[in-house]
Amino acid sequence: MTVISVNGQLGPSVSALDRGLAFGDGVFESMRLLKGQLPLWSYHRSRLVEGCQRLSIPVDITSVENWVQKLISDAAAEKAEGVLKIIVTRGAGGRGYGIDPTLVPTVVCSLHPPPPALSRQPVNLHLCQQRLSINPVLAEIKHLNRLENILLKAECQKAGFEDGLVMDADERVVETTSSNVFLERDGQLYTPSLKNCGVDGVMRRFIINELLPVLNINVEIAAIDLTSLPTFNSVFVCNSVRGIVEVSKIGDVIFSPGEVIDQLQRVLSESRFGS
Amino acid sequence: MTVISVNGQLGPSVSALDRGLAFGDGVFESMRLLKGQLPLWSYHRSRLVEGCQRLSIPVDITSVENWVQKLISDAAAEKAEGVLKIIVTRGAGGRGYGIDPTLVPTVVCSLHPPPPALSRQPVNLHLCQQRLSINPVLAEIKHLNRLENILLKAECQKAGFEDGLVMDADERVVETTSSNVFLERDGQLYTPSLKNCGVDGVMRRFIINELLPVLNINVEIAAIDLTSLPTFNSVFVCNSVRGIVEVSKIGDVIFSPGEVIDQLQRVLSESRFGS
Repeated sequence: MTVISVNGQLGPSVSALDRGLAFGDGVFESMRLLKGQLPLWSYHRSRLVEGCQRLSIPVDITSVENWVQKLISDAAAEKAEGVLKIIVTRGAGGRGYGIDPTLVPTVVCSLHPPPPALSRQPVNLHLCQQRLSINPVLAEIKHLNRLENILLKAECQKAGFEDGLVMDADERVVETTSSNVFLERDGQLYTPSLKNCGVDGVMRRFIINELLPVLNINVEIAAIDLTSLPTFNSVFVCNSVRGIVEVSKIGDVIFSPGEVIDQLQRVLSESRFGS
Repeated sequence: MTVISVNGQLGPSVSALDRGLAFGDGVFESMRLLKGQLPLWSYHRSRLVEGCQRLSIPVDITSVENWVQKLISDAAAEKAEGVLKIIVTRGAGGRGYGIDPTLVPTVVCSLHPPPPALSRQPVNLHLCQQRLSINPVLAEIKHLNRLENILLKAECQKAGFEDGLVMDADERVVETTSSNVFLERDGQLYTPSLKNCGVDGVMRRFIINELLPVLNINVEIAAIDLTSLPTFNSVFVCNSVRGIVEVSKIGDVIFSPGEVIDQLQRVLSESRFGS
């Protein structure tokens, strides 16, 4: 069952005039609830604040934190597993694109059942045909304009895949429809730059900031052309709900199991994100 | 006062799990209500159906028409002036990007007060610095992913303008933040191609399909580089709420009053859209 609160009050609905609905005018976060805790909360909090700053949405992050805790308490989920989602929009009102600075942001918190148990099996990714558009102004943040992801995910499903590798209009590797991607060649780890498009995922940040330093492994944030895909030895994808997953094949390109992936999965399971 | 219905029932709210709110997963239309009538309804209907087809949203357009009529009746607006807005989303449910084909679309109809009386004064447009991203898959339709328009409108307002001319990432003229644009040089009319980005506006279609033929004037749909802007003699913008408005200046470039603009405003006022 899904339990929902809007600006701290339990309830299933938002105003039909909300700008989140009208224009996708807001940001969101999805995260694992593990034993009633949100282990990567500090990262989600940072990205939520960054996204609201980028869009000039005057969110009160302390209220958001209180409302999240209240929802967990109201749902009696203090020891539960699940997925918590937070949507912050600019608020309800108006009909045009112009921003009314007096609007009060809408904060929707919802608590969902946990995803199916993680398989340790490597995944095959579809090589997506549709391209992500390039827009540095909207890159990195997790805004609510997600039609591109929806259409890309539909392309994957139609091709018989759960997920797929996505390139931008310049034929550079960006991400999958719902994960970030890391690629390894001769022991050197790379992950795509997200300055032009894509979401800077919380698990990506956690890996770069906390897990790789434990293993004393460097990562290069780089422009990665699609044509260079066969030059990599191993690949993994990551997000803050599913953790780290090895990739065995993308389109026709086959990858080996990588030692760094095993090491990362181990330090992840030993970290505060470990379940 | 704004009167709202959701799937035909009067009411102010939608599910907090609606995919319109979660991802901007839907389309919308805004149109003038004139003496209780929707004069360009056939055009809005067409674009709504096109948009839903593009996004694979199984909208029942006959129900939408019935709910629009019911809202006008419920609001006792059979002879009223105003702006009617319709939002169609994929419906409520789920947490991920994947499409559940069993979802029932959400249709929000809302009736708003009329905009301030139209000024016949030419407008000055800001020359926007932000660029529209290029994505043919989402071009032309009026989807709910409008953060680019919001940020562009904010740029205009910050610069002291109501609206501004917007270019794409290839430096081609596309539209303004809320209107389509037509440009005239030596008697020949042009309007930007919208295959890469931008909204194919209902007033643009009405002008091309019905008004220009009355005047026996041709228009060329073309790629228009920003650098060519000073070569045009006159410019006008149009949308289905404000009609046709002459542009006197864009950035530093000054335009003359154009005879074709006077003619078009006259035939528009004599058409079924005339107020």
